[in-house]
Amino acid sequence: VSVFRRGRLGERFDLDAAAYTSSLDFDREILRATIWVNAVHLKLLCEKGALGSEELEKALKALRRLEENPPEKIDPRLEDVHGLIEKVASEASEKAGGMLAYGKSRNDAVAAAIRIRARERLLQLTLQQLQLIEALLKKALEHVETIFPAYTHLQRAAPATFGFILHGHAQRLLRNAENAETLLNRINLSPMGAAAVVGTSAPIDRLREAELLGFDGVLENALDATTSRDFLLMMLAHLFDSATSLSNLAEEMVVYSSSEFGLIELPDEFSSTSSVMPQKKNPVVAEIARTKSAEVLGELVKAAVILTRLPGGYSLDLQQVTPKLWNAVDELERSFKVMAKMVPSLRVRAEEARKACLPPVGMAEAANLLVKNFGLNFRKAHQLCALIARLMLENELDEPSFQKTLSGFGLGNKLTLREFLEWMEPERIVASYSTLGSSNPREVERMVNRDLKRVGELRMRCSERLTKFEELYCSALNL
Amino acid sequence: VSVFRRGRLGERFDLDAAAYTSSLDFDREILRATIWVNAVHLKLLCEKGALGSEELEKALKALRRLEENPPEKIDPRLEDVHGLIEKVASEASEKAGGMLAYGKSRNDAVAAAIRIRARERLLQLTLQQLQLIEALLKKALEHVETIFPAYTHLQRAAPATFGFILHGHAQRLLRNAENAETLLNRINLSPMGAAAVVGTSAPIDRLREAELLGFDGVLENALDATTSRDFLLMMLAHLFDSATSLSNLAEEMVVYSSSEFGLIELPDEFSSTSSVMPQKKNPVVAEIARTKSAEVLGELVKAAVILTRLPGGYSLDLQQVTPKLWNAVDELERSFKVMAKMVPSLRVRAEEARKACLPPVGMAEAANLLVKNFGLNFRKAHQLCALIARLMLENELDEPSFQKTLSGFGLGNKLTLREFLEWMEPERIVASYSTLGSSNPREVERMVNRDLKRVGELRMRCSERLTKFEELYCSALNL
Amino acid sequence: VSVFRRGRLGERFDLDAAAYTSSLDFDREILRATIWVNAVHLKLLCEKGALGSEELEKALKALRRLEENPPEKIDPRLEDVHGLIEKVASEASEKAGGMLAYGKSRNDAVAAAIRIRARERLLQLTLQQLQLIEALLKKALEHVETIFPAYTHLQRAAPATFGFILHGHAQRLLRNAENAETLLNRINLSPMGAAAVVGTSAPIDRLREAELLGFDGVLENALDATTSRDFLLMMLAHLFDSATSLSNLAEEMVVYSSSEFGLIELPDEFSSTSSVMPQKKNPVVAEIARTKSAEVLGELVKAAVILTRLPGGYSLDLQQVTPKLWNAVDELERSFKVMAKMVPSLRVRAEEARKACLPPVGMAEAANLLVKNFGLNFRKAHQLCALIARLMLENELDEPSFQKTLSGFGLGNKLTLREFLEWMEPERIVASYSTLGSSNPREVERMVNRDLKRVGELRMRCSERLTKFEELYCSALNL
Amino acid sequence: VSVFRRGRLGERFDLDAAAYTSSLDFDREILRATIWVNAVHLKLLCEKGALGSEELEKALKALRRLEENPPEKIDPRLEDVHGLIEKVASEASEKAGGMLAYGKSRNDAVAAAIRIRARERLLQLTLQQLQLIEALLKKALEHVETIFPAYTHLQRAAPATFGFILHGHAQRLLRNAENAETLLNRINLSPMGAAAVVGTSAPIDRLREAELLGFDGVLENALDATTSRDFLLMMLAHLFDSATSLSNLAEEMVVYSSSEFGLIELPDEFSSTSSVMPQKKNPVVAEIARTKSAEVLGELVKAAVILTRLPGGYSLDLQQVTPKLWNAVDELERSFKVMAKMVPSLRVRAEEARKACLPPVGMAEAANLLVKNFGLNFRKAHQLCALIARLMLENELDEPSFQKTLSGFGLGNKLTLREFLEWMEPERIVASYSTLGSSNPREVERMVNRDLKRVGELRMRCSERLTKFEELYCSALNL
Repeated sequence: VSVFRRGRLGERFDLDAAAYTSSLDFDREILRATIWVNAVHLKLLCEKGALGSEELEKALKALRRLEENPPEKIDPRLEDVHGLIEKVASEASEKAGGMLAYGKSRNDAVAAAIRIRARERLLQLTLQQLQLIEALLKKALEHVETIFPAYTHLQRAAPATFGFILHGHAQRLLRNAENAETLLNRINLSPMGAAAVVGTSAPIDRLREAELLGFDGVLENALDATTSRDFLLMMLAHLFDSATSLSNLAEEMVVYSSSEFGLIELPDEFSSTSSVMPQKKNPVVAEIARTKSAEVLGELVKAAVILTRLPGGYSLDLQQVTPKLWNAVDELERSFKVMAKMVPSLRVRAEEARKACLPPVGMAEAANLLVKNFGLNFRKAHQLCALIARLMLENELDEPSFQKTLSGFGLGNKLTLREFLEWMEPERIVASYSTLGSSNPREVERMVNRDLKRVGELRMRCSERLTKFEELYCSALNL
Repeated sequence: VSVFRRGRLGERFDLDAAAYTSSLDFDREILRATIWVNAVHLKLLCEKGALGSEELEKALKALRRLEENPPEKIDPRLEDVHGLIEKVASEASEKAGGMLAYGKSRNDAVAAAIRIRARERLLQLTLQQLQLIEALLKKALEHVETIFPAYTHLQRAAPATFGFILHGHAQRLLRNAENAETLLNRINLSPMGAAAVVGTSAPIDRLREAELLGFDGVLENALDATTSRDFLLMMLAHLFDSATSLSNLAEEMVVYSSSEFGLIELPDEFSSTSSVMPQKKNPVVAEIARTKSAEVLGELVKAAVILTRLPGGYSLDLQQVTPKLWNAVDELERSFKVMAKMVPSLRVRAEEARKACLPPVGMAEAANLLVKNFGLNFRKAHQLCALIARLMLENELDEPSFQKTLSGFGLGNKLTLREFLEWMEPERIVASYSTLGSSNPREVERMVNRDLKRVGELRMRCSERLTKFEELYCSALNL
Repeated sequence: VSVFRRGRLGERFDLDAAAYTSSLDFDREILRATIWVNAVHLKLLCEKGALGSEELEKALKALRRLEENPPEKIDPRLEDVHGLIEKVASEASEKAGGMLAYGKSRNDAVAAAIRIRARERLLQLTLQQLQLIEALLKKALEHVETIFPAYTHLQRAAPATFGFILHGHAQRLLRNAENAETLLNRINLSPMGAAAVVGTSAPIDRLREAELLGFDGVLENALDATTSRDFLLMMLAHLFDSATSLSNLAEEMVVYSSSEFGLIELPDEFSSTSSVMPQKKNPVVAEIARTKSAEVLGELVKAAVILTRLPGGYSLDLQQVTPKLWNAVDELERSFKVMAKMVPSLRVRAEEARKACLPPVGMAEAANLLVKNFGLNFRKAHQLCALIARLMLENELDEPSFQKTLSGFGLGNKLTLREFLEWMEPERIVASYSTLGSSNPREVERMVNRDLKRVGELRMRCSERLTKFEELYCSALNL
Repeated sequence: VSVFRRGRLGERFDLDAAAYTSSLDFDREILRATIWVNAVHLKLLCEKGALGSEELEKALKALRRLEENPPEKIDPRLEDVHGLIEKVASEASEKAGGMLAYGKSRNDAVAAAIRIRARERLLQLTLQQLQLIEALLKKALEHVETIFPAYTHLQRAAPATFGFILHGHAQRLLRNAENAETLLNRINLSPMGAAAVVGTSAPIDRLREAELLGFDGVLENALDATTSRDFLLMMLAHLFDSATSLSNLAEEMVVYSSSEFGLIELPDEFSSTSSVMPQKKNPVVAEIARTKSAEVLGELVKAAVILTRLPGGYSLDLQQVTPKLWNAVDELERSFKVMAKMVPSLRVRAEEARKACLPPVGMAEAANLLVKNFGLNFRKAHQLCALIARLMLENELDEPSFQKTLSGFGLGNKLTLREFLEWMEPERIVASYSTLGSSNPREVERMVNRDLKRVGELRMRCSERLTKFEELYCSALNL
């Protein structure tokens, strides 16, 4: 079956061995990109006079047909998408099919196809991620004033607002999304023309080939160009970064929607119940979402282990690396989609959230006021507040015990308990935050609005790149 | 759609959320086991008088039909195989279907089904693994006398035989295969009757349920029984162990079949060539096989990360853990199969292999003879031999330089160079190995024959267990 | 410096290269075991007449001294503990030192030493783990009657007892601890006498050597014996299993001690506060403890990746694998110790815990009673209870709405709301659980007492083995 | 002991718990950076009038002393470097020490200190990496003409040059090194002023604080600023990328220096031998170097697993993440150093390397000439060459068999065997490569020279940044 085996190895290829080593199953993901690569190769051979334009036209037509109607089931002895394409092209034009491997190898072609598909999927994923970010930011805008506790060590730490919490998640996801553009610089380099491993004497213009394939530049050294998958590792790391943000967000949803925390309510349409315990409402979307970081880390480990052992140029091991990337993208794409759909119908339980911010929660800011108003050293103020916090927790705080505590720090009767408790009113506290990036409602509003703009701009840039790639593809597949 | 949601959450379940959280895709793997679990549950309810035998019969019939003709496409809002089974059973008998969750939850049922399927797949995988081990042992038996170098640090270390090398791989894989039985003790414990998380007041006889499902015992504490997936981690670790053996074997195949080593020849039907470089013969099966340890490690990491974060009882995260196990088993099963098929047609290039054992390779045994024959301290003998090795490598070894070196150690003229070189004849050396487990042909023969017997015995035990499970299943599905 | 280099490579060894490749830093962990291995080797050579008993005595004395006063800083050009030992022994007796490598290589010696140390550390770790298990069981015994909610999906699932929860953790940790004995069968096999890779012609009695070193058997094939580290992978997997149990336990401590859950209180002496927010009490021990599964998984990944790539016999890569095991053991040993110390002073907040079990939490058992008392189909009972749960959550449950709901299921006026609510009293529910392994106080009591006995027995067996090893060591180091 | 505990928790802190949770051991790495952060904080408080300049001076002096003479052993109950610094500062000036936590928390301070130290270590590591790259490039320049085979699938693929191979490694490592600058953009953002989690009302100017600490900008949202460790994950991924390049390079060293390949010779001073087999020369530096990717991957997994589970703001788990980064940097720094030292004394065995390029190795280029000279379709030419390759391998190639093969393709007598073999002369082939990035000596020369320039420029930029940071540090620690 294989066009390559004849001569050196004989026709026979054990069917189990062929199925075991064939990449045809996961090559579907790069079929279109590989067609593109081959079309450009033939076009340039035609320009150099190594192929007639009629032959070219026949082959391009066959490639277009293949892309529109890819076969359901392919003989594994064709080995991979390259074997399939050469077969299809050769049936249309023996000359054109036969020249596909002139100055081009499966090694550079597959590296190019993976990069083309990776950049496309990265851009599409980023667009999906921006949907989630936008949903978080819009929700945040609704809740810039909604008092909500900030936790550290899963202990109530300070009064904040729900808008601030959501903006925190959005900021992190947006930082990751913007990083996609940096990553593209690494992915979007052309290995085409590196041939099998050392370059070739065939008349290949690498710069022009790169241009027609939408690459930003050429990965020079041919050995490096055909063998390196560092862009894939870095992309998996990038995906793991966003999966971690997703996981942290989902973890908060699970915790904050528990009866005990009771701070948010997840929408019924995104929850399930128990088959046995009818009172239950389970945060299943968030539970599944938080497992995705494990998926992506697992894929990264797989890719890493395969890559790290290899000497020299291309080995078939490399073929097993690529599907890990597609899996990871799939997992995240679905997760961003369903989360972006769920976030708008999250409900905050504002009253409970405010309650969780009552004293002694704002004690750090009470200490700050002791510093400001009485010139107390902060550590002293902290100790004083700690004693008051303990009295509060043990239900022993009253005016006398308060004054007694103050006296220990030379502040006897400088302040009433009532005044002190007013200091700790959550609304007062969040309004008093004065630093850049604080949970002061005005600051959150500013950040959210600025980030909504960044979302819009990044979305535009991603869409534009995708459109440009699509145009190049179309012009490559036609004369 | 779901039979569970009504009442608490309302009927609506967002379709994306349902698809995202449904396990129906990978539940196919446990469909049969879950049917078994449900059939036994209904039977015992019938014995306790909680269900009439006609209703039972209707439900069993429906379950048998489901197993024979599982639906192609299932509405994800059914959530999982349990939802599907209750729906199918309820259509046959409302009473029987409605009692499926009486004293039984998805949590204990799925834990039981996973264990049932895991033990079955482990036994089947072990049988496949024994095929490979047997192939290695038989090949070893052909080559107990074939001189072949042993390497350390990828440097020729000592004369050995090809049979010894292959037996080394077989011994390691067999140790792992025998470990499967130990692992079964951990897997084959029944969580049935633990209900959702704390046990139940329903009339459930856990011991009898365990017996009918082929379990060796009961996992007592109900929280532990429903939540623990340690057996799954340990099984993944077991699989990684065999994947590592596979990888090491495959690595040797790649290295030893290179032109440079040229010690073995892989069969053409299991090799491919280059689409560009016609002289090449690529060891593709071994390349793919050695990536499988990365696959299994990645699956282990995925499972590990999901499991490690969870508090309390069942969370939906656990549902994402199980498919990792099936993937890992799939990968290894295919690998053992194709390797077992390839090994018999491996060809040793005996002449080259013997050449690789010529002096200075056997120098350690020359040193041993200096100790034995002349009472030299071994370290001295080692130093003497090192000097001779250097002379040899620099092409400066002749009788005068040899004698001069001997003299430095007080052995001048005690030995001719010719005698010394005869000491290093590979056949003499391997025959001189006298320790248990050495590469002496007689010792290798003994070990191989003994291990062939162990293979046969383990195969018998695995088959018997599989048969017993099958019988229990059949009797459970019928009245 | 090195006794090995002379002759073949010349004396010079680049100091950076020596430091980079030397294992002396982490060989401290196996110093004692390696001394043991060398002492036995010399003794047996003496028995065979290859070494005089005076020389033996000198060497043993030097080895004893080395063990008692290991040097602080060692020249890295000695390479490893074997180089050090040969140097020390040779200084005491040139003959004895010089015979250390006769029929024994660093490859089999280090494999033996690692196994000796691994079995010792595993036993010691298990003893430490038993301390924690015992602490959990004793605490459980105090709380067999203390009502405490069981969670699934971090949602209140069913009334249970605190004793039951703790026993769940103990059962899982104990299953792991008992597995240590199975693992020992894999670890405790002797590679001694395998020499460098293929066995030897030197007069080595592998069975006797194994016996004197406390091994249970011999790992036969010499290639496998010197190269395999599967025992180490399986031990890391075993450690990861216990680390996961630890992590799940710690996660519950963090969650249950939050203000919102408020179910347990961690002792002040095991908590810290904030340097800024004086009201806080942070569960720092549990936070650190739950990171240990990440540590162990990381070590496992390191070992796995190194092992999976190697062909043939010993490579120096293997030297880097071993420290991962010691690190993992260290991490867990310290964790078990501090947790075992903290558990006894855990305080349950019994009132809050009971509150968390009030209706609608016990609804599954109310459904069971509807089945038992009125012959309702469970699914119907579940739906009925779901409607009641919803009324409850929406504060709309009263006698009329209750009866209206009952009517919908043909049970109008068969039951008063008051009776129904009495069904859901937590104490009644837990007392009604009737299955093996349930959270019924009597059942928990039974399990805890049985497991305390198992703890005692396992502790005894571990201690006995450690003592036996110690005795063998002492007799080996003396004539 | 702790300045923080008093009031809320009481003084007692269990010593084991303190040791278990303290970060003092690994805080040494960030001592200097934390001092810097605290000094700037005090300076700005002084500027705002919240601290007198005399008090400031006393505190700065104490901090300088601490940096110069850090204590050997610190009580773990001080918890961490922040506790230590506050203690030291308070002893010098109670007021200044007491104000350290005013508007600054351990959470933002430690995040800042880690970023400061991470950027420094990244720059230093990059400088070390550039040493290795330069060594590779210089070696490549010596060998632009040295014929050397390129491998794919560990099979000889095509004639290349040793310079080309080395440049491939250098190009990949240099791409990674240049990525360090991109990564710095992510690392070098200031969390200072985010306080514990939500910002503060204290008079903190985040922009100015960032400037004085050498940060390029501010990480705004305070929750994100204190909790995010994405920069650390991305840095570990970056390190893993370079570790993989290192591993691939080391793998080639091991393989190419084996007797069988015999293409390169590693210097004696960087090799070791066997304690038993005196003829051996083991590539120990390369063996150790290739394990480093496992180390870094393990560290990445550790960090990833810890980070992925956490909700909300700072948890003590985060403290365990940081040491993973330092470990990974340490491992690579030492590796780059020793490899950079070893590369210059690598010796190519030019004759053997050229032999490995003789026919049929250059067959792809023979096929290209058949296309160019006779207008053959490439696939036909490939088949023809495959037949000739087979004849060659079976020692049956002579003029008659050659012509017979040609005839089958319509080329009978168009070419003599001698001419054909001249086509395959390695020197002719490498000179014929005409693509960008090929192994044509002129092209390699061009790339190497260009990359040497890039190395110089990047080195300059890294050094300049380090110098600037040092200056800022010094001015911060002085009035």
